[in-house]
Amino acid sequence: MTTRYGLHGKLTASEGNRDKLAAILLEASRLVSTAKGCQLYLISTDKEDDNAVWVTEAWDSKEDHDNSLSVPGVRELIGQAMPILASMPQEGQELRILGGTGIN
Amino acid sequence: MTTRYGLHGKLTASEGNRDKLAAILLEASRLVSTAKGCQLYLISTDKEDDNAVWVTEAWDSKEDHDNSLSVPGVRELIGQAMPILASMPQEGQELRILGGTGIN
Repeated sequence: MTTRYGLHGKLTASEGNRDKLAAILLEASRLVSTAKGCQLYLISTDKEDDNAVWVTEAWDSKEDHDNSLSVPGVRELIGQAMPILASMPQEGQELRILGGTGIN
Repeated sequence: MTTRYGLHGKLTASEGNRDKLAAILLEASRLVSTAKGCQLYLISTDKEDDNAVWVTEAWDSKEDHDNSLSVPGVRELIGQAMPILASMPQEGQELRILGGTGIN
């Protein structure tokens, strides 16, 4: 069975910066939308955590995900996000997507 | 901005039953794939937890999600899954999906 590479991870913004962080990540989602192997890149807020932004990704392979860091503009967006992140650690999972509905 | 209703939740199978649980959930994803408002319903395993199956959902609204429990066959699948689940609690998040790429 062909599986996909998935990531579901939380970024926590410093106080008052959640919406700015979400806007940066939405811009990142536009940049990677045409990257090889990108199936899904969703940006969400969390009903239980006012400072959290979740990124939910599906890629044809981990290699495709890793290569997305080289998409023009992505590193600049990471640079914009870093100063408004709260201290780590991060939370989340690496997933092996077996299938389902909603991606090709 | 229109947002979507998201759920990312972990189900833990009793020892040796992960693949059976995943198969039940993949069947559920087929049943709900044509349900009103279903944008995404992915089934994944976890690289760090051999007994875990994650379900990642996106719906036009929480109401659409709740109505999906009435899709013919879904309750029967829940009945098949219950006996092979390990004890709770569950882990996961309710999400407010702001946007991104990969769903309509």
